[in-house]
Amino acid sequence: MENPSLRTGMEADPAAGERMHRFIADAFGFCRSITGDGVRDTLRLVEQTIPLTQVEVPTGTEVLDWTVPQEWALRDAFVIAPDGRRLFDVAESNLHLVGYSTPFRGVVDLEELKAHLHSLPDHPDLVPYRTSYYSPTWGFCATQRDVDALEPGEYEVVVDTELFDGSLTYGELVLPGDDEREVLVTTHTCHPSLANDNLSGIAVAAEVARALAAVPHRFTYRFLFIPGTIGAITWLATHREVVDRVHCGLVLTGLGDAGGFTYKRSRRGDTVIDRAAELVVERDAGGRMLDWYPYGYDERQFCSPGFDLAVGRLTRAVHGEFPEYHTSADDLSFVDQAQLTHSATTVLRLLGAVDGDDTFRNLTPYGEPRLGARGLYRGTGGAIDRRSYEMAVLWVLSLSDGHHDLMAIAEASELEMGAVVEAADQLMGAGLLARV
Amino acid sequence: MENPSLRTGMEADPAAGERMHRFIADAFGFCRSITGDGVRDTLRLVEQTIPLTQVEVPTGTEVLDWTVPQEWALRDAFVIAPDGRRLFDVAESNLHLVGYSTPFRGVVDLEELKAHLHSLPDHPDLVPYRTSYYSPTWGFCATQRDVDALEPGEYEVVVDTELFDGSLTYGELVLPGDDEREVLVTTHTCHPSLANDNLSGIAVAAEVARALAAVPHRFTYRFLFIPGTIGAITWLATHREVVDRVHCGLVLTGLGDAGGFTYKRSRRGDTVIDRAAELVVERDAGGRMLDWYPYGYDERQFCSPGFDLAVGRLTRAVHGEFPEYHTSADDLSFVDQAQLTHSATTVLRLLGAVDGDDTFRNLTPYGEPRLGARGLYRGTGGAIDRRSYEMAVLWVLSLSDGHHDLMAIAEASELEMGAVVEAADQLMGAGLLARV
Amino acid sequence: MENPSLRTGMEADPAAGERMHRFIADAFGFCRSITGDGVRDTLRLVEQTIPLTQVEVPTGTEVLDWTVPQEWALRDAFVIAPDGRRLFDVAESNLHLVGYSTPFRGVVDLEELKAHLHSLPDHPDLVPYRTSYYSPTWGFCATQRDVDALEPGEYEVVVDTELFDGSLTYGELVLPGDDEREVLVTTHTCHPSLANDNLSGIAVAAEVARALAAVPHRFTYRFLFIPGTIGAITWLATHREVVDRVHCGLVLTGLGDAGGFTYKRSRRGDTVIDRAAELVVERDAGGRMLDWYPYGYDERQFCSPGFDLAVGRLTRAVHGEFPEYHTSADDLSFVDQAQLTHSATTVLRLLGAVDGDDTFRNLTPYGEPRLGARGLYRGTGGAIDRRSYEMAVLWVLSLSDGHHDLMAIAEASELEMGAVVEAADQLMGAGLLARV
Repeated sequence: MENPSLRTGMEADPAAGERMHRFIADAFGFCRSITGDGVRDTLRLVEQTIPLTQVEVPTGTEVLDWTVPQEWALRDAFVIAPDGRRLFDVAESNLHLVGYSTPFRGVVDLEELKAHLHSLPDHPDLVPYRTSYYSPTWGFCATQRDVDALEPGEYEVVVDTELFDGSLTYGELVLPGDDEREVLVTTHTCHPSLANDNLSGIAVAAEVARALAAVPHRFTYRFLFIPGTIGAITWLATHREVVDRVHCGLVLTGLGDAGGFTYKRSRRGDTVIDRAAELVVERDAGGRMLDWYPYGYDERQFCSPGFDLAVGRLTRAVHGEFPEYHTSADDLSFVDQAQLTHSATTVLRLLGAVDGDDTFRNLTPYGEPRLGARGLYRGTGGAIDRRSYEMAVLWVLSLSDGHHDLMAIAEASELEMGAVVEAADQLMGAGLLARV
Repeated sequence: MENPSLRTGMEADPAAGERMHRFIADAFGFCRSITGDGVRDTLRLVEQTIPLTQVEVPTGTEVLDWTVPQEWALRDAFVIAPDGRRLFDVAESNLHLVGYSTPFRGVVDLEELKAHLHSLPDHPDLVPYRTSYYSPTWGFCATQRDVDALEPGEYEVVVDTELFDGSLTYGELVLPGDDEREVLVTTHTCHPSLANDNLSGIAVAAEVARALAAVPHRFTYRFLFIPGTIGAITWLATHREVVDRVHCGLVLTGLGDAGGFTYKRSRRGDTVIDRAAELVVERDAGGRMLDWYPYGYDERQFCSPGFDLAVGRLTRAVHGEFPEYHTSADDLSFVDQAQLTHSATTVLRLLGAVDGDDTFRNLTPYGEPRLGARGLYRGTGGAIDRRSYEMAVLWVLSLSDGHHDLMAIAEASELEMGAVVEAADQLMGAGLLARV
Repeated sequence: MENPSLRTGMEADPAAGERMHRFIADAFGFCRSITGDGVRDTLRLVEQTIPLTQVEVPTGTEVLDWTVPQEWALRDAFVIAPDGRRLFDVAESNLHLVGYSTPFRGVVDLEELKAHLHSLPDHPDLVPYRTSYYSPTWGFCATQRDVDALEPGEYEVVVDTELFDGSLTYGELVLPGDDEREVLVTTHTCHPSLANDNLSGIAVAAEVARALAAVPHRFTYRFLFIPGTIGAITWLATHREVVDRVHCGLVLTGLGDAGGFTYKRSRRGDTVIDRAAELVVERDAGGRMLDWYPYGYDERQFCSPGFDLAVGRLTRAVHGEFPEYHTSADDLSFVDQAQLTHSATTVLRLLGAVDGDDTFRNLTPYGEPRLGARGLYRGTGGAIDRRSYEMAVLWVLSLSDGHHDLMAIAEASELEMGAVVEAADQLMGAGLLARV
């Protein structure tokens, strides 16, 4: 195939890596949380790559078992030490303040201050990322080294935040296809200055959307940029009619680090997206496969047993398995441009396998048809080599009995899904196959 | 859980090991066979631990394809050598006489005597255990060393036994539960002075019964102390209505030696007891799993294709795989008190997994319910650690779709069955689960 | 069993090896192709071992998607070099001419000649085997060394062949059994001077047919000696009513080399012949198993999705995996008499497992029946040892529930299929089993 085609395997735009890395750098300092202007500013930056609809859901809206919380705004937060030094200043890093800290101004002694400090004894130079969405309190995050150096005395604490009836914000882009069934691509937007988790996911999702918008595709693709947990719950609660037409989906996060891919299966474990991942992530890209488990990211909500959607998750390093996870070490140096590009390509191939999959019936099933006479041994001159193509033709004819889909054929034949899809296209053209 | 609970995992009584070892020592000298006073005396000794019903089934009773045989009584048996020494005296060890030997008194030469002697050329210092229930004959068992030392000459043989119309004896204890479905625990009582095979099985079964009698349990538990083969056949033939309500069962034998556990699957191979053993014996206790094969102990009868009960077998060393098997080396030194206790604990955990297993439906299946608001993230302060408990809560919610039972959840989550059962109990208490 | 029996496991005739090797030597020089006298002469030589029906199908007959081609006759073919030497003479080896070369006489320069030459740069001393059935052209095959030594100049080319309306020839032998369902044994006859591929297959098929004709068998066996691809397609097109009663089948080729066995599964992968091969080829003979793939030999046609027959393939070395494949090195020295004999024995055991397979119901399924009383512990004094026999009796009783066939019992028990079949025969004789 001479033009890039989602069905037969496309690659990310060569310029995508630089675009993604710049986005991450630009958005790094925004104070994202599950609500607020940090999210809105981030979505506006995403709009430099793709158009988005920003949706606002008011505080107090009932969503499934939950309620949309108050909006949180951070103006300033720091501590003044007895010697006058300014500590844990959010102007330096927004990780210093526990997310959703309630407003506080006052003077506390060292003991009381320490009851509000979070640090990592095992990683004494890293600042942890902490939130307290549903237990009203305030707190600061600091390196263990800084905590240990605190002298007794009076500390002035300033937590200039506000909780108010506002809204929860998310971004959405729908790319309609011939088929109204939808493929979801979702990524969480609620983490502050953490580069891999999850500015990398946002960047890759945007770049994939940009590529998809430019090529034909069968299914309808819906990209969601949502706050974790409450955002997924809010979207699910407010889109029950879309849920019914979800074909499959993918949660994206942590796609810029140096590690290999890790795909986590949907709850059902053998859905179309899981099977595509077996081909594209595990077999072709050497990635690791994890069975479903009920913690992690927003797949928890999409795969809750009532919805039970065919939603898997693609990451590189996995939450909790690397020391930089949810700390100040997940900074710009932790994400790599080439890894981001490879991630975007892999997501495109994964979606391509889903988009190209179909089930056919061989119309000349008694003995092999004469392929030479129909020009089907010519090869194609494209990206897929001649031998793979001829093998793919034989495999598609052999297994197209109305029961094996093209992914099953790619699996049995050990051929790339793109070669199999292309062979099926040519056999359809020659009148040898019918779609089931 | 503060009180011991079968459902969430209980341990054998710390005093059980000593009690079991003393029982084995006390019963070791009794002349057990498939009938007779040796069995009756053994059952009476078991009654020091648990109450038993002793059942007598008359000689001649037709049982399935078999007939209850005549009762056998041994008064005395020995051989007088040409030099006047008394050899192979049952007063020394009841292994010396072939079980069910027919009465005989007479003088024979060495050649004729040897035709009636059994020994083990490969283990010249061990006396084998032999029986001849259905071919009427007499015989003695001896060490190869003693057989080789016999001089030519006249030997006086005394086999003072009796075969008469009496009965076959077995012991039974039923512990009724809320559910009339029964869990069988059976062990054979027909082996004479062999400690591991099977005084250890009798001891462990009795101790498990004692523990179960003291705690709530869902199913009805029936403990059977029966002669091998003919005893199982007799019980099956006379309890067809009980057979119909057998939920599952376990044959216990050889549980005192130093080896690890070996679980043999039921004929169907994937029954509730097999699945419980995969969790408790294989995964948690590092035991070995064997697929069904049609020889061994009384599982042969319980799993014959007409009954096809969900009956597995738990042993440590396996019949025929260790040199002490069915020889004089299976003596008191071969069984260990700590191993017996560990066996009793493992049987209790195996039965606990069966007792606690159930299938639920998540009543808030759309998205995750707010657990913190319901106090379900508090942990429990019990034997099960907080993290396991919280994971268990998430797993039970995720997989309780009416199809996965708690054993399936324990398997998928790699959590202990007790943690999963406890999480389900708490979720039921919070109104988040319904029993299917 | 004292007489050889297909059901319980028979061996090839001790004289078979010599007979097969002589056949291969005698037939080696014939110029076989997909049509013509070389095939007819080969079939006549097969008739020294077994009777055959030679069938002629006229040129132009429509067969499925194909047409029976013109018959091809070779009278002479060679090249005269500028120095007068005669090169690539078919009198030396019929591999020198591309099969189905069109007639040509003329003088060509070296460049033009080379466009018609085929050689193997990686194996410079081997002559390749090439055909051009459906693209009319002529060509010669030579060693790379000879090609490289050609001097510029004028070459006289003689291709004295003829293509004419004649027929396609195949041989067939049907051995009727009690059951009209048929087991196919097929082998291709279209390769010229290649010993392993496929004179070995023809020899083994003939020897197996000879052995089968001499013993009772349940199924009807049909042996096909057919040209590759077009022959299979022709037979399938003209025997649709036989196809409907095919129980299973086996494609034989490449059975004389020094390698171990390779069995290729039918398209369905779990048919009766595949299961027999798991026992006989993989487990008992240590052979390798390949899953279905849609290239290779005539299994391509028998397993095309419309027919989808239970046809597997047995070879030793696999096409394309050894350097001698389709070259002049596949000569008489490449096939071994003992390997041929072992191949014939293995095919007989494979067919025997199919022939002996059946499903029974235990008529005394409640508990074990008394076997001693019925003389079923006597052993048999035959080839199968007593312990295997007794185990087989227990296994057959245990698993004969109407669902497990004897092959499943052989698999579960790890016993030879012959021992299991014999146990079932004896249990039938004792009235303990009924055929389902």
